Amino acid sequence: MTTALLPTALKDVAAEIDRQFDRLLAVPDDSRADLYRAMRHAAMDGGKRLRPLLVMATAALFNVDRESAARVGTAIEAIHVYSLIHDDLPAMDDDAMRRGKPTVHVVYGEATAVLAGDCLHALAFEVLADPDTHSDPFVRAELVADLARASGPSGMAGGQMMDLVAEKSRFDLATVTRCQALKTGALIAASVEAGAILGRVPPEGRKGLRGYARDLGLAFQIADDLLDVEGDEETAGKRLRKDGEQGKETFLTLLGAERAREQCRMLVAQAAQHLHAFGPEADLLREVARFVEQRDR
Amino acid sequence: MTTALLPTALKDVAAEIDRQFDRLLAVPDDSRADLYRAMRHAAMDGGKRLRPLLVMATAALFNVDRESAARVGTAIEAIHVYSLIHDDLPAMDDDAMRRGKPTVHVVYGEATAVLAGDCLHALAFEVLADPDTHSDPFVRAELVADLARASGPSGMAGGQMMDLVAEKSRFDLATVTRCQALKTGALIAASVEAGAILGRVPPEGRKGLRGYARDLGLAFQIADDLLDVEGDEETAGKRLRKDGEQGKETFLTLLGAERAREQCRMLVAQAAQHLHAFGPEADLLREVARFVEQRDR
Repeated sequence: MTTALLPTALKDVAAEIDRQFDRLLAVPDDSRADLYRAMRHAAMDGGKRLRPLLVMATAALFNVDRESAARVGTAIEAIHVYSLIHDDLPAMDDDAMRRGKPTVHVVYGEATAVLAGDCLHALAFEVLADPDTHSDPFVRAELVADLARASGPSGMAGGQMMDLVAEKSRFDLATVTRCQALKTGALIAASVEAGAILGRVPPEGRKGLRGYARDLGLAFQIADDLLDVEGDEETAGKRLRKDGEQGKETFLTLLGAERAREQCRMLVAQAAQHLHAFGPEADLLREVARFVEQRDR
Repeated sequence: MTTALLPTALKDVAAEIDRQFDRLLAVPDDSRADLYRAMRHAAMDGGKRLRPLLVMATAALFNVDRESAARVGTAIEAIHVYSLIHDDLPAMDDDAMRRGKPTVHVVYGEATAVLAGDCLHALAFEVLADPDTHSDPFVRAELVADLARASGPSGMAGGQMMDLVAEKSRFDLATVTRCQALKTGALIAASVEAGAILGRVPPEGRKGLRGYARDLGLAFQIADDLLDVEGDEETAGKRLRKDGEQGKETFLTLLGAERAREQCRMLVAQAAQHLHAFGPEADLLREVARFVEQRDR
């Protein structure tokens, strides 16, 4: 198996997503200018673009039009970025650095940061519902349902709430797993699902891809916990060692570093196995799994 | 023209929307319980429910299934409520009272308030994209597009940004009008538009309804400015006299109370005229316009 696909794919996807945001977020010549600048600051020129990559790599399995997949990837990234802006607020995690840059509220103030997050949230659904994204309204409506569910109280935002509570109580392994499955896993799963929706794969045909996404999401979070303890702040582009400061239970505190790393490796292998029905066309998704295990940012 | 339709309609719609939120926001037995309680606190048992009423009264013109219209009305109200939660945050307007109750961040803390707003935002789109809301995916996708556009940076949230800037600069009448058209007008227009979408009225047939909604939205905002100066805080259920404190230009400061009241009356009359193509079936919408002129909360 080649390992040369990923670096190029990451670079191409990053350029494509920046191009999409640049088009979506043209700064208007009125008093909303700072709102758009704040969105551009958060959304452009940074991040791994893992979620758009998952949308686009999954969609490519089914020969979906690349522009269509890029627009959906941009919508999901917009949801991810809005959640980072709000999560970084003083009332939430109070973070000053993100993706190697000062956070939105540090540069533009808290009020603009709240609104910039809200606007990226709305824009995501505007893009998904746009006929230019996909000509079939059934596909558009299914994409909206997928993303709304994955980002709301039964998904990402619900997981963030559990995470808030986790700082004040002792979670066991089952609860930490459930919290992370919502907080990070749901949007990662929604990205793969979106690729399958674009590919018009019927729900009964998505089992393998869903298994892949579930294991990948969990591996991603364990790697994130390891990164929080062992990573380099400059490379990561954000503040680390937060879990320890907050006294929060994580996969690491519950399993120890060695078993956590082992668990991550096992999940990555398992994720790849879920793709057994696919040939070399799924090599990029397989590489993504290995990349998640080795992430340093 | 009878004036007996509105009180009953307002009561029925309020009960219906509470029923919908009660179903959507069942409190889960896990650490997200406070998140759901916060959403219930903000979304249930309060508010004029003007936007759902507009959806349902417009949909009724075209004999749309009432449950379908109620679900769409609930989605739009969820967007409105999320914007109130975020707008009341200390970093934004810093308000302690809303709809006669303490605001969400006062009761549940700021972090939960941010997330409760984000969750209502996502839930709105989840409801619109749900096949139970409407069987035709084209209608669902159009509803999502309508609401996303009206609530994002070119609509409500964009207007809130202009409003933030207005506190620090001197706006003229044209700019205040544009700011209010976005901040309040866009979502009111989207409510009427949603009723027309549900009624499968083609865009070229929506002209009268759009004119009605535009004039209604502006009248609503002028009435809001008058309420801010002349209203009773207890009846209004929220803090008043904010515009003056913030030194913000409003319709009132720019026109004076008498001309503002005149302008409001004229807009309400004009709104009703846009409905000339409809018979008595539009009487409820006509009454809504008069209600907006006389609002005290």
